[in-house]
Amino acid sequence: MAGAVDDLKLLGAWYSPYVLRVRLALSIKGISYEYAEEDLQHKSELLLRSNPVHNKVPVLIHGGNPVCESLVILQYIDEAFGGAGPALLPADPYERAVARFWAAFIEDTLVKAMNQASWSKTEGEKVEGNKQATAALNTLEAALRDISKGKCQDPDSMSHRSSRKPFFGGDSAGYVDIILGGLLAGVRAMEAMLGVKAFDPVTMPLLAAWADHFGALDEVVAVMPDVSRLVELFMTMHAQIAAEAATAN
Amino acid sequence: MAGAVDDLKLLGAWYSPYVLRVRLALSIKGISYEYAEEDLQHKSELLLRSNPVHNKVPVLIHGGNPVCESLVILQYIDEAFGGAGPALLPADPYERAVARFWAAFIEDTLVKAMNQASWSKTEGEKVEGNKQATAALNTLEAALRDISKGKCQDPDSMSHRSSRKPFFGGDSAGYVDIILGGLLAGVRAMEAMLGVKAFDPVTMPLLAAWADHFGALDEVVAVMPDVSRLVELFMTMHAQIAAEAATAN
Repeated sequence: MAGAVDDLKLLGAWYSPYVLRVRLALSIKGISYEYAEEDLQHKSELLLRSNPVHNKVPVLIHGGNPVCESLVILQYIDEAFGGAGPALLPADPYERAVARFWAAFIEDTLVKAMNQASWSKTEGEKVEGNKQATAALNTLEAALRDISKGKCQDPDSMSHRSSRKPFFGGDSAGYVDIILGGLLAGVRAMEAMLGVKAFDPVTMPLLAAWADHFGALDEVVAVMPDVSRLVELFMTMHAQIAAEAATAN
Repeated sequence: MAGAVDDLKLLGAWYSPYVLRVRLALSIKGISYEYAEEDLQHKSELLLRSNPVHNKVPVLIHGGNPVCESLVILQYIDEAFGGAGPALLPADPYERAVARFWAAFIEDTLVKAMNQASWSKTEGEKVEGNKQATAALNTLEAALRDISKGKCQDPDSMSHRSSRKPFFGGDSAGYVDIILGGLLAGVRAMEAMLGVKAFDPVTMPLLAAWADHFGALDEVVAVMPDVSRLVELFMTMHAQIAAEAATAN
């Protein structure tokens, strides 16, 4: 642990990919904090007061100041606790812009498609969501290939193939890895339920390797929710959606 | 002008609120650049090559490196050209987080509602969009009130009511002002077309004053598109939507 930060509290929900991002960032930076699990059916007074605009988790409260929205929180952690652990965003302005571009892509394109694929009420919408999610993952695979190639053009890396960087952040997991990594528990649960591979090792070898590398990091293992518990939750949610769709028909 | 930057080119479209944000930021920071108007019906090879994922404007190309997505570009401008003009984001990590929160709110909540209100095909969707846009503007009005109050709790400001800060960025227009300000030309055109006030001076006095202050800045006037030309464009677009809706019926 790089250190405890006084008066740092995270309001979360164990199954939320957005909360997981914050837990991943704090874990990777080695920052300790108090965690409070919210019951989103009965939100706490503290949550409602801390995020009056959206009433949503995650909220990170630092010295009484609430920070909301997972991507905003990640950047806050990087800027407020710069001394602790590795930097999440690179130092170079252009590399920061590239990381923020992929963060926005995951948030606006991949997450939307995955949600449509998982939680739509009609089969047609699900199929379309799946198609868009696969297209988005192929785009990320190409991005990872470029990052990997970029590193290999460096003569030092060329002479050591094993030093090839497996992360979006290069040597270590950074901002983009954490944002994509927040989705990993849900992806593993969906894979277990449907018996499919989200990151096909043949068509998406770099993403498949990324998921294995990232998922095996001690800092990641320490905060990943239990996949079997997620499967249970997802099955309940799917049953509810099916019941609602049947009632609507 | 704080200065010319070598090899800086913006690919844009004169009517795009996202492009306007970038022009506002560069104008406020006093950075000169080459502007290239794109015909989005016939996109240039340079645009397609520079933004292969989205094929959209704005793209800022600096020293051959393309930066895409307006919010990413604004942060790039702030970080890469830190020496030029005023900083767009505050220095304090918590104030930066607050600015990023409102930026995300404008992007995810206000812009979506405004688009629904303006470009939906059915009257019901338009009414719902209008309702949501008004709610979002009321939330921004409250945010501006808090910012204004916060400043007035400072004894120096209390003694000089005229020194009350009218911008989201406080003393000068910053990140949030630019993101909201990018919408201002479109808002003025809609007001002219519909004969309504988007920022009601009675219910939204601070936003109405903000729009007047921001719109009157020299750096803003210099890059604002012509409202009557926008009205013409919007009327053509509305006629097309109406024709499509009539055909669909």
